[in-house]
Amino acid sequence: KIDPDRLWDSLMEMAKIGPGVAGGNNRQTLTDEDAEGRALFQKWCEEAGCTMGLDQMGNMFAQRDGTDPEALPVYVGSHLDTQPTGGKYDGILGVLGGLEILRTMNDLGIKTKHPIVVTNFTNEEGTRYAPAMLSSGVFAGIHTQDWAYERTDAEGKSFGDELKRIGWRGEEEVGARKMHAFFELHIEQGPILEAEGKDIGVVTHGQGLSWTQVTITGKDSHTGSTPMPMRRDAGLGMARVLEKVSEIAWSHAPHAVGAAGHIEVYPNSRNVIPGKTVFTVDFRSPDLSVIEDMEKRLREDGQKIADDMELQIEFEKVGGFDPVAFDEGCVTAVRNAAERLGYSHMNLISGAGHDACWINAVAPTAMVMCPCVDGLSHNEAEEITKDWAKAGADVLLHAVLETAEI
Amino acid sequence: KIDPDRLWDSLMEMAKIGPGVAGGNNRQTLTDEDAEGRALFQKWCEEAGCTMGLDQMGNMFAQRDGTDPEALPVYVGSHLDTQPTGGKYDGILGVLGGLEILRTMNDLGIKTKHPIVVTNFTNEEGTRYAPAMLSSGVFAGIHTQDWAYERTDAEGKSFGDELKRIGWRGEEEVGARKMHAFFELHIEQGPILEAEGKDIGVVTHGQGLSWTQVTITGKDSHTGSTPMPMRRDAGLGMARVLEKVSEIAWSHAPHAVGAAGHIEVYPNSRNVIPGKTVFTVDFRSPDLSVIEDMEKRLREDGQKIADDMELQIEFEKVGGFDPVAFDEGCVTAVRNAAERLGYSHMNLISGAGHDACWINAVAPTAMVMCPCVDGLSHNEAEEITKDWAKAGADVLLHAVLETAEI
Ligand SMILES: NC(=O)NCCC(=O)O
Ligand SMILES: NC(=O)NCCC(=O)O
Repeated sequence: KIDPDRLWDSLMEMAKIGPGVAGGNNRQTLTDEDAEGRALFQKWCEEAGCTMGLDQMGNMFAQRDGTDPEALPVYVGSHLDTQPTGGKYDGILGVLGGLEILRTMNDLGIKTKHPIVVTNFTNEEGTRYAPAMLSSGVFAGIHTQDWAYERTDAEGKSFGDELKRIGWRGEEEVGARKMHAFFELHIEQGPILEAEGKDIGVVTHGQGLSWTQVTITGKDSHTGSTPMPMRRDAGLGMARVLEKVSEIAWSHAPHAVGAAGHIEVYPNSRNVIPGKTVFTVDFRSPDLSVIEDMEKRLREDGQKIADDMELQIEFEKVGGFDPVAFDEGCVTAVRNAAERLGYSHMNLISGAGHDACWINAVAPTAMVMCPCVDGLSHNEAEEITKDWAKAGADVLLHAVLETAEI
Repeated sequence: KIDPDRLWDSLMEMAKIGPGVAGGNNRQTLTDEDAEGRALFQKWCEEAGCTMGLDQMGNMFAQRDGTDPEALPVYVGSHLDTQPTGGKYDGILGVLGGLEILRTMNDLGIKTKHPIVVTNFTNEEGTRYAPAMLSSGVFAGIHTQDWAYERTDAEGKSFGDELKRIGWRGEEEVGARKMHAFFELHIEQGPILEAEGKDIGVVTHGQGLSWTQVTITGKDSHTGSTPMPMRRDAGLGMARVLEKVSEIAWSHAPHAVGAAGHIEVYPNSRNVIPGKTVFTVDFRSPDLSVIEDMEKRLREDGQKIADDMELQIEFEKVGGFDPVAFDEGCVTAVRNAAERLGYSHMNLISGAGHDACWINAVAPTAMVMCPCVDGLSHNEAEEITKDWAKAGADVLLHAVLETAEI
């Protein structure tokens, strides 16, 4: 079994880098804080006897060798980047939980046939650079590297330039590595495990996602002297579309969710009727046909709202992935581990997207989830207990040992 | 009569400072561009033989002496600051139109009993620092200077510090000057004069304004894994309040308008349900009881929306003024001038707030308006014709000459 105190101390140590304003973290991808977090992770991996690989997307791979030089490695890991007002565990638990299982194997002198590699994927969150899970997506051949490099943040800085600037652009070709299997430990980010009183979620599926960027164009004009009938208010148009987004998601609940998290208004002056609004609608469902229906209704109903108000509206899909079913063998390894260790468990569909969802396309993959307090994530107050972290890392350890063959 | 080409050239020359991105201007208050515009205006005034006064709010006063040393000056003017995506005429026409009438009097050797002073009031627009008409408000004793100095912009920079930084904080006590009368020439910023085919608006009243900053607090959480019933979406709450704002304003139309021009969403990440939104509602009406009713309904209906959604809502009044009735004598001087010069004219209620609305509290005041194309203002495409500018400045000249006594 893993050492829960050591795991917890590492989590708390990492959380000191890029602290948030309310107890959480702001360690967004490709910032100086991201670079600092990476350096600390590398130091710890080297202390644990690993060699570090770095690919051209900045994905990090810390390898503990196996006994069979021919055997493909078993991969574990997640991401170290956070939301602008994110928590200390979303992603980090999967990376440092991976490190903890290596440390435990070192302590116990356990040798595996397959090497074990702990990974940190770049830009999982997708806040600074859309889409989310960008670098595991390139690894899995979903996006091209050139396209990824051209993504720009709100200030116009490109992903490629920023990766180079922080000094974490490696030489290794992205996706060249072949994986025997991939396991990602992650907090649930939702309320189900806690409500059901289970220690472990055996993740069988991941729901799909669709991000549509909506641009509404009206006419910026004086808020005081433009009569009501002459207004072409892009802010009011946005308000109506946001109401529709909620209505569409509710119509499929509990099998769908939807909201807009990112909203910009132009010129954003108190006495100017908004001439333009740009916002991103996030729809999700475990059912592809539901996602497609929601996308279609957003476009149709949004167009109707815009036409009625004499506004222009444009829709651009800026991110998305289909629902995934994880590998049966890997899922069974997770379930067996939980069973063997005596942790209560249940099957789960992941509500969030994860690097594992992309890696699943190129390697047998599964996920281990542990609860988080009040199901709260993407919030600085995100919290887990040391016991939950321990259970998750223990299950990860045993699923990996079964797969990597002692 | 004034020289329309000279007036137009000055307008175009000023528009070169702080150009916008689409043909208009971004010369916001207390920026380096504002300082540059002020310096150009000062140079022109000195060339016209004026002495320049500067008060502690940065209000500028270019004086052409009269023949009676005891006589109080007649003031004309407006503001040189613009919206972030503003036009070349909103405010500027009133300042440079004032300069043009002095230049014309110089050309014709006209002497007046009362001195004539052309003013540029600081921060009329209110975008960078709420409220609008801040410095004419301090001049008129509506706000204290200390309070004005403490206003901060979005980056937390205070008005007082920025005024000093750009080098335009004067020594003169604000509001110490006494005025014989004040006349402000301004573009209408609305569609009425153009629709009615009139050259001149004789402004009898100004409608009142109320700015309420609304803060809605929910809970930022994961967009994918937070089930619909658990969401406390401050973005959706805002959408419902925006719809209500429109409904409230329409219920009083055509005697009211309303919209929100300034909107901020936190943490503003694509996959985070907004935990907080802050936006400013702008309600206007010529009828004080209508403004009061709209404010009350915003608070009541907004509270109900928030309660239904388990959100918190707060309201803060961040700006406002009551409807004003301008001075009968000054209004008559404007109407007489238009009549005498043969310009078509009509009475108008100003839809926008103006420095004249505050100055009206401490001096006999009136406004001259000229049309603008499509009623469009607070937009880079704001446009007027040279003929309209000429008519406005001619009427200003003659109203001033009548009041300042040749
Ligand atoms: N786990 C996680 O928050 N990933 C970011 C992508 C998503 O929004 O689901
Ligand atoms: N004239 C003008 O646009 N003034 C700004 C204050 C207002 O919003 O009415």
